[in-house]
Amino acid sequence: MSRLDLWRHRTEWPLIGVAVIFLIAYGLPIALPDLPRWVDVLSGTLMTVAWFVFAIDYVVRLSLADDKWQFVRRYWLDLLVVALPLLRPLRLLLLVKVLQRFSRTGVQRLRGRVVTYATGGTALLILTSALAITDTERGEPGATIESLGDGFWWAITTMTTVGYGDQFPVTTAGRFIAAGLMVGGIALLGVVTATLASWMVQTVEEAAEDEATATRAQVEGLAAEVRALRDELARTRDVERARADSDPR
Amino acid sequence: MSRLDLWRHRTEWPLIGVAVIFLIAYGLPIALPDLPRWVDVLSGTLMTVAWFVFAIDYVVRLSLADDKWQFVRRYWLDLLVVALPLLRPLRLLLLVKVLQRFSRTGVQRLRGRVVTYATGGTALLILTSALAITDTERGEPGATIESLGDGFWWAITTMTTVGYGDQFPVTTAGRFIAAGLMVGGIALLGVVTATLASWMVQTVEEAAEDEATATRAQVEGLAAEVRALRDELARTRDVERARADSDPR
Amino acid sequence: MSRLDLWRHRTEWPLIGVAVIFLIAYGLPIALPDLPRWVDVLSGTLMTVAWFVFAIDYVVRLSLADDKWQFVRRYWLDLLVVALPLLRPLRLLLLVKVLQRFSRTGVQRLRGRVVTYATGGTALLILTSALAITDTERGEPGATIESLGDGFWWAITTMTTVGYGDQFPVTTAGRFIAAGLMVGGIALLGVVTATLASWMVQTVEEAAEDEATATRAQVEGLAAEVRALRDELARTRDVERARADSDPR
Amino acid sequence: MSRLDLWRHRTEWPLIGVAVIFLIAYGLPIALPDLPRWVDVLSGTLMTVAWFVFAIDYVVRLSLADDKWQFVRRYWLDLLVVALPLLRPLRLLLLVKVLQRFSRTGVQRLRGRVVTYATGGTALLILTSALAITDTERGEPGATIESLGDGFWWAITTMTTVGYGDQFPVTTAGRFIAAGLMVGGIALLGVVTATLASWMVQTVEEAAEDEATATRAQVEGLAAEVRALRDELARTRDVERARADSDPR
Repeated sequence: MSRLDLWRHRTEWPLIGVAVIFLIAYGLPIALPDLPRWVDVLSGTLMTVAWFVFAIDYVVRLSLADDKWQFVRRYWLDLLVVALPLLRPLRLLLLVKVLQRFSRTGVQRLRGRVVTYATGGTALLILTSALAITDTERGEPGATIESLGDGFWWAITTMTTVGYGDQFPVTTAGRFIAAGLMVGGIALLGVVTATLASWMVQTVEEAAEDEATATRAQVEGLAAEVRALRDELARTRDVERARADSDPR
Repeated sequence: MSRLDLWRHRTEWPLIGVAVIFLIAYGLPIALPDLPRWVDVLSGTLMTVAWFVFAIDYVVRLSLADDKWQFVRRYWLDLLVVALPLLRPLRLLLLVKVLQRFSRTGVQRLRGRVVTYATGGTALLILTSALAITDTERGEPGATIESLGDGFWWAITTMTTVGYGDQFPVTTAGRFIAAGLMVGGIALLGVVTATLASWMVQTVEEAAEDEATATRAQVEGLAAEVRALRDELARTRDVERARADSDPR
Repeated sequence: MSRLDLWRHRTEWPLIGVAVIFLIAYGLPIALPDLPRWVDVLSGTLMTVAWFVFAIDYVVRLSLADDKWQFVRRYWLDLLVVALPLLRPLRLLLLVKVLQRFSRTGVQRLRGRVVTYATGGTALLILTSALAITDTERGEPGATIESLGDGFWWAITTMTTVGYGDQFPVTTAGRFIAAGLMVGGIALLGVVTATLASWMVQTVEEAAEDEATATRAQVEGLAAEVRALRDELARTRDVERARADSDPR
Repeated sequence: MSRLDLWRHRTEWPLIGVAVIFLIAYGLPIALPDLPRWVDVLSGTLMTVAWFVFAIDYVVRLSLADDKWQFVRRYWLDLLVVALPLLRPLRLLLLVKVLQRFSRTGVQRLRGRVVTYATGGTALLILTSALAITDTERGEPGATIESLGDGFWWAITTMTTVGYGDQFPVTTAGRFIAAGLMVGGIALLGVVTATLASWMVQTVEEAAEDEATATRAQVEGLAAEVRALRDELARTRDVERARADSDPR
């Protein structure tokens, strides 16, 4: 396989590890706000390191790619992940890599893959949104999301489009996070429904399948018929030949 | 049938009965809060008994299963139902057994079964959520759900993802119940849509079906043609034979 | 056609007229609360008359039906419409008859009919809910729906499952109306999606259709081939016969 | 192509330009409320001009159309766009023309076109709703939408049917805009789901496709068989002929 594939293969698990470390480093100070100063410093350092790692990975892959421009277009998300983390919440986009990788681990059947993707994506989206919104909103004037618990509750009510309104972002950054989550929620709804629908449509269609099989069987029978016919014909000719030869004179 | 199936068959209706008793024992004190002390005691006892019954049922079925590990994996919900009821609201998971059983009563056509399942599941989900949320929230500081009526109203607005926000859980337990209900709501939406979609797709497809039938008919005609052809050929040969024999010399 | 069909045919338009009159009689005092006393009296009388008309219609149809029990089961909604109007809002169920009839006016293609039904049903549902909720809520302590305009706004926000929470029912009757509307909203969502989906699936499938047609064409070609073959054979035999006859001795 | 098509082709890009100018002229004073007086005057003038341009375009196309009445029925939206702009927010309907045109730029595959349409329509709907609602609500008593930022936030929460209720229209005009947006949101949900569903159904169906192909292949084989058979037969006859001729006497 090409050197690019080789690199991807080799770096797959390490990068997931880095992403997880990043998540912990990002999430811990949000979950427990009253940690000693040095923890914040440590987590900050870890996040920067993680970001560097992903930046290097992107650059290396870009350099190994044959068609740079196509690579940039195809992996625009990776570019975003690396280019945008100046806005803190967006750094969590790094975690998308985890999903990207897991979705690649070959689950054969389409629907199976979709379900895996939807479940994983939902979990990841809720987790990251809850962290990001808490990080962004907490302590803002008029903020209703004050703890990670609130964050999770808000994320779930938003993604399911229930939206009680007991909690909602008040900052612009928080509203951007919310918008992303809502779009995710709609996509989720769509995926769930579509998966169910396609499953039902297929099951219902099996009747049609059988019909097709029937036709195919018929055609096979017909072919046999024709083969038999040809043998018959051959035999006829032999009879002829026999008479012709046994005919002296 | 195997001894496991026999056990299942024999215990089916009794277990439904137990589940219903459990529901009443759980629901009554919630519906009518000001009942005499002894009713609470009685309902508590009944619930414990019901739980024991289901625990025994699970253990027996596990012991009768050939592949224990596969049994545990397949009936993880039953395990949850038995293992988790230390958290009171979750005890209602016991009622899922009712649905499981009814869904098994053989409704032939897929869509019919799905509709039954969706309707039953929705009713059960709303009933149990309403009970559980009222049980959990009532009397909590800042709680908005104070009666079973409120509980039902909340359950419906949540499951349909309307979420006015006039009532919402404030306790952590309540929020977990809500999360489960929302997921149920999304699934419901999905099922309703999927059922409609598959119905429409199928009806629209009937045209295609007819096409297939047409083809099949043609192939049959063709087979007849070929059979006729073979007879013709046989007759030809007989003519030959006749001439050959009638040929003295 | 049977006497039942005849009755249905004859009473179709009159009943729609009655239903519309009922709607106006019901809606007018709600839209304009400060009408003189006699208008309320008139509207009340008209509603009672309309109800009687529908009751008579139901009884006549029941008496004309061959299988009474099946009729009751099939037209359970009509029975509800006639039996329940003691609860005022439910009287509006009478209007379902209008929809039932319009949906019957033969729109050929399935999707077309579905769209008509969905649009009509939505309009009817919003109109009736808005009227019923305003009628039920107005003047109640803590009610947020005080005018027909509020009613319509609430109906739309609820049916689309947006549910801002600026307005929501506070009475039990109002909450039942809301529940019905929410279910309607979900069904609407499902129908819209399903219609779109089936349309797309079908369009995408036209490729498959063409495939099928191709196969059919092939089989036709094949049949021609075989027919030709048989003629050939017939000719062969004639040659034989000719030789046999032209053979003296 | 007809003179109507020619006119359409020629005016396509100019009209898009006018629509964009209209959008800017409409949006700028809403985005930045404290602009000098002359800017308002200018934007007002530009909007009137844009409206005239579209009115003229409609009239010309109507005059070029062969069947006027059918033209009016088919392009009812254009008529609305031109006839209604007395209500300020509705003027934004003009922008629909942009979408109409982009949707026409030939993206081949159905799903591709749908995605383009949905994305474009959503963006346009949110943009115009945000502008219109801010324009309508700002400064009203009890209004919660006071800036374009609020407008966008409200538009997103509404279109995704989340509806926190932290912001909602209080004026009748605003509620009409909201109703339109909600319907748009439902349609969006439907399109997203339908697209996903049709994609999955099709992918799953490819198996069925292969079946069909198989059948077709078989039939081809069969045809070959029959052709071979006919040659055989021809050869038989030649043998006969040979014998017949080589037979003196």
